[in-house]
Amino acid sequence: MFKVAVAGASGYAGGELLRLLLGHPQVQIGALTAAGSAGDVLARHQPHLPALADVVIQPTNPDVLAGHDVVFLALPHGASAVLAEQLDARVVIDCGADFRLIDSVAWQQFYGTEHAGSWAYGLPELATAEGPQRDHLQGARRIAVPGCYPTACSLALAPAFAEQLVQTEQVVIVAASGTSGAGRSLKPHLLGSETMGSMSPYGVGGSHRHTPEIEQNLSAAAGRPVTVSFTPTLAPMSRGILATCTASIAPGVSVDDVRAAYENAYGTEAFVHLLPEGSWPTTGAVLGSNNAVLQVAVDERVGRVVIVCAIDNLTKGTAGGAVQNMNLALGLPETMGLPTTGVAP
Amino acid sequence: MFKVAVAGASGYAGGELLRLLLGHPQVQIGALTAAGSAGDVLARHQPHLPALADVVIQPTNPDVLAGHDVVFLALPHGASAVLAEQLDARVVIDCGADFRLIDSVAWQQFYGTEHAGSWAYGLPELATAEGPQRDHLQGARRIAVPGCYPTACSLALAPAFAEQLVQTEQVVIVAASGTSGAGRSLKPHLLGSETMGSMSPYGVGGSHRHTPEIEQNLSAAAGRPVTVSFTPTLAPMSRGILATCTASIAPGVSVDDVRAAYENAYGTEAFVHLLPEGSWPTTGAVLGSNNAVLQVAVDERVGRVVIVCAIDNLTKGTAGGAVQNMNLALGLPETMGLPTTGVAP
Amino acid sequence: MFKVAVAGASGYAGGELLRLLLGHPQVQIGALTAAGSAGDVLARHQPHLPALADVVIQPTNPDVLAGHDVVFLALPHGASAVLAEQLDARVVIDCGADFRLIDSVAWQQFYGTEHAGSWAYGLPELATAEGPQRDHLQGARRIAVPGCYPTACSLALAPAFAEQLVQTEQVVIVAASGTSGAGRSLKPHLLGSETMGSMSPYGVGGSHRHTPEIEQNLSAAAGRPVTVSFTPTLAPMSRGILATCTASIAPGVSVDDVRAAYENAYGTEAFVHLLPEGSWPTTGAVLGSNNAVLQVAVDERVGRVVIVCAIDNLTKGTAGGAVQNMNLALGLPETMGLPTTGVAP
Amino acid sequence: MFKVAVAGASGYAGGELLRLLLGHPQVQIGALTAAGSAGDVLARHQPHLPALADVVIQPTNPDVLAGHDVVFLALPHGASAVLAEQLDARVVIDCGADFRLIDSVAWQQFYGTEHAGSWAYGLPELATAEGPQRDHLQGARRIAVPGCYPTACSLALAPAFAEQLVQTEQVVIVAASGTSGAGRSLKPHLLGSETMGSMSPYGVGGSHRHTPEIEQNLSAAAGRPVTVSFTPTLAPMSRGILATCTASIAPGVSVDDVRAAYENAYGTEAFVHLLPEGSWPTTGAVLGSNNAVLQVAVDERVGRVVIVCAIDNLTKGTAGGAVQNMNLALGLPETMGLPTTGVAP
Repeated sequence: MFKVAVAGASGYAGGELLRLLLGHPQVQIGALTAAGSAGDVLARHQPHLPALADVVIQPTNPDVLAGHDVVFLALPHGASAVLAEQLDARVVIDCGADFRLIDSVAWQQFYGTEHAGSWAYGLPELATAEGPQRDHLQGARRIAVPGCYPTACSLALAPAFAEQLVQTEQVVIVAASGTSGAGRSLKPHLLGSETMGSMSPYGVGGSHRHTPEIEQNLSAAAGRPVTVSFTPTLAPMSRGILATCTASIAPGVSVDDVRAAYENAYGTEAFVHLLPEGSWPTTGAVLGSNNAVLQVAVDERVGRVVIVCAIDNLTKGTAGGAVQNMNLALGLPETMGLPTTGVAP
Repeated sequence: MFKVAVAGASGYAGGELLRLLLGHPQVQIGALTAAGSAGDVLARHQPHLPALADVVIQPTNPDVLAGHDVVFLALPHGASAVLAEQLDARVVIDCGADFRLIDSVAWQQFYGTEHAGSWAYGLPELATAEGPQRDHLQGARRIAVPGCYPTACSLALAPAFAEQLVQTEQVVIVAASGTSGAGRSLKPHLLGSETMGSMSPYGVGGSHRHTPEIEQNLSAAAGRPVTVSFTPTLAPMSRGILATCTASIAPGVSVDDVRAAYENAYGTEAFVHLLPEGSWPTTGAVLGSNNAVLQVAVDERVGRVVIVCAIDNLTKGTAGGAVQNMNLALGLPETMGLPTTGVAP
Repeated sequence: MFKVAVAGASGYAGGELLRLLLGHPQVQIGALTAAGSAGDVLARHQPHLPALADVVIQPTNPDVLAGHDVVFLALPHGASAVLAEQLDARVVIDCGADFRLIDSVAWQQFYGTEHAGSWAYGLPELATAEGPQRDHLQGARRIAVPGCYPTACSLALAPAFAEQLVQTEQVVIVAASGTSGAGRSLKPHLLGSETMGSMSPYGVGGSHRHTPEIEQNLSAAAGRPVTVSFTPTLAPMSRGILATCTASIAPGVSVDDVRAAYENAYGTEAFVHLLPEGSWPTTGAVLGSNNAVLQVAVDERVGRVVIVCAIDNLTKGTAGGAVQNMNLALGLPETMGLPTTGVAP
Repeated sequence: MFKVAVAGASGYAGGELLRLLLGHPQVQIGALTAAGSAGDVLARHQPHLPALADVVIQPTNPDVLAGHDVVFLALPHGASAVLAEQLDARVVIDCGADFRLIDSVAWQQFYGTEHAGSWAYGLPELATAEGPQRDHLQGARRIAVPGCYPTACSLALAPAFAEQLVQTEQVVIVAASGTSGAGRSLKPHLLGSETMGSMSPYGVGGSHRHTPEIEQNLSAAAGRPVTVSFTPTLAPMSRGILATCTASIAPGVSVDDVRAAYENAYGTEAFVHLLPEGSWPTTGAVLGSNNAVLQVAVDERVGRVVIVCAIDNLTKGTAGGAVQNMNLALGLPETMGLPTTGVAP
């Protein structure tokens, strides 16, 4: 059994981590910490976790987090970098952005602060010309969990880039996310009255912070720089990301070539599934699971590949990805404790 | 390992059964059957269950269902009664209504057909003066799973009746259900365009078929006849029941008496939880779990107890209750394979 | 043309008032005021009102509100009472609670502050033994708009009380409201992630402040004191109230008697409609309209009348009711400028 | 007063037409017709229209539709073409697709039937190098109302093409629509249980029938052929389209050039609004109105313009557009009877 702490236990990512960790056979849950809600019992913030209802949330600091085998950080941007240096845990897994980007210039451009550095990037299934990227996660001690959008978008497009089936420019992604992706922030546009029955875009024009992370992943897949037009939208649902990803097809590439690339990339993956022809992903079908489901199409009229990917932003997109990384880091079976069935309808 | 078949595998109850059975450590999934969708692969109807994606649905008949330790029936009203007689399984668990009612007159009044008889009624936590009703389920061979509304309403009110804290008349229940309670029926009022952003009542005036079942349970708890005014409503959500249950308080009963009765009834239950004072149930917090959460209040101005109960209609209200009953019938731990954490937010 | 000001123009009630006033042929919109958002253009808070996009919100004070024929107050509890004394407008219409209750004791019990007094109560269709209550609103100078729940619940039950068809005790109401009823408050439980897909109760046990207002109206209808068990619930939709209202039927009363009472009470009303037998109200069908739709049933098994009423909480339940009152106060046709078609689906 | 008939009065487009026509000061509503629901009262299908509750739906045929000044056709694909020839009305306005496409080859490719011809295309604000296209609609006798997606997408992109600011290839559009866009079809994937909480794509790879219509409009704007990658998605809401439209920017074009083009195109339009910088469209803000709201951004990193447009698919996207066309055809003020305020929140 590994003793695990969660920093940021009162937020949505923290709650999802705890939901999954409660079902993990090799985990003992230790300290739960937060900032503003320290001193509260967990039930006040996570009523869906009755097994932990009476646990008192402690303040987030190195002393409270000491003595654990694994510490998950589910904190606001910038908070992880400072804290991480002071942690003694064998494995630290950051669900935030602080250590995702390799490129300091991109970090400063999109985040506006000093770059804290980069950790092993935790997307095991990320396709490259050399195969998926899980090797560097096995036994890793510090792991940066991908952002929710980059998870969906990179899984959707990386195989096409890894096999040079598409061009590195004119990549366009439009993705819809449930509101939990914005966390439990008290902002007017996140109220139920505003979000129910309404869709809205944000970060339009390339300003969303997940843009350079998507480009980093696709460039790694392609072996050369890839640029992306990325537009996120907010959808009237709590959970889920549906990413519609399109790219200009390389000359002579057929739809069979494309399908073959995805079957090759994901045929043996436990969580990433190319659907049979004629079926299309829905976020409902992956709700609560660690699955990513994809379908590909080629629009020959306009010479474009369209790949649609659905994930649960809190599971595969955050906490499920984090637990998957923990399993790799600890030498456990990669799929241990992770649900592969969605909660539908 | 027990070999389990599901008849009605393409519906919502069938899908939820399979979600839970896939996570059950003592179950091997056998035949999946249905009527109209026989011949299809399961993925076409249950895309959230990738582990069973390629299983071909077989027709529902005794031959296909033969040779299993357990058969779950998730069929329309009336279909179970005919089929059940022909099944050789050690345990048959009916998620439909056919065998729930003891009273043939009530059956005919509300269902309009001949009464097929009654099986062991599968609500283990149902409070009576003699304690919860799980004994008769241990080792049972034929079990009728309660209706979704009766599960919520009976858990909400039975302890008060079992301890004679409320009066047997003037009981009023108004409950809201998600649309999955109506199954995958192609009816205009169940379209997303009609249900999103709208609430509506149905079965008003006591005509809903769950009314006599609720009365049967509360009468068992009280040890004398109880009548109920029950109004169900359709809420704009896929899953969940919120039942607001009120009864006239008996003379001299205090709020402490009421809380004590519920603590006494459910204090050791794994799935039924009286929330701490000041917390109120939400259906969101129990989504996907086998939990029922309750809170009680006494309105002294009008002399009424108000108990609110939230469940997931497909889990505790149908498939989770069914698996809990299977565990009891097979002598397995009652909680085996059943989620106690909700998928929230 | 009458010059009209709205205090509280950046909230949901204020926005709905402006939506309706923009369509009113005898109104010229004057000052728009608010507290925290003074100085902003209206578009920032009410993007659905392009005709007023560039209007700058002014601070709420008597000087800004001076010189108008009509002032609507859409302010938090307690704010209206202080301001109202200083207003010179011919007609002041308060959408808040400050002047709704006649009984100072009830006010202090439920609101905990000193009672500011009572204004003409603005529910023109409220049935009493002497007929509807609109006379005292014609030419009134100060009008208190009913709360949203009291509007639905009183329209649902008053005719039965006015004709002594039901008993004054054992009245039970459970109502579901969309989230806009809570205003634009930044509270965690009102976030989209919490409200979508979830129902929850609040104010259980008789503590909701609309309880004494409902009792005041029903007592006026009955001509003797009526007490009510009232439980509100929050539903996953932006707008709408569905009120399920039940009462114990008086001896010898038939369902025909009940229908006749409602046909008699509302047969000539423009906004309140008893549906044909077999049809039931949905909040979707009244969205955006000033309609209240009702249906009645008698549950003979338990001797109860069940009346269900659907309104749009922001229209008939707040701003539409307010404009209807303005029409009466100014001597305009009562229905002027008020939509009688819903926006569905 | 003009006498107006609606064929297809029991569907969603028909219901929305009637909602708008009831508020139109120059219209007298005549025959309401349908196929399967002929003989029913309208209330059974359109409960939001109490003013027409008792109108009996007649069968759709030329005799019933004879003698009207205007006939609106809100029928399934293919039904309009046959019927239209037999209508004697001065003005016939088809909300279906039959007469939208000029190109017979494109028609046959996407619809698979014989092309019925083309009528005046009813998007008055469609920008071209010669200005908006409303002239040919003034006094027109036969008008094809644009599809809902083409309305949003063409309004979003046409000004950029009309001023040659973007390139005619590599145009990518991803749009989200509410479920009412699919009509009242009884299909499993349109059930509330399936659509609530879930997003899904359809028609991926360029197969959606609105694709050639979008291309037709943008080609008209550009004065040369434009091709489009178009992916529609189904969002968990009843109404609304959010279209995210991107194109490769022409060399030397600045964001100021782009904004100027849109201000120029829509500055005097009543229904189409470029939002102020910093504001983004939401479908909630236009619900129930005839407005289209847009915002533009230039992503300089990747050389792309991103324009987002929100409309109500049933209002501006169907019935509101149809009434706007009727106004033009009859010589009435273009905006008569059309709401310009949304129903929000």
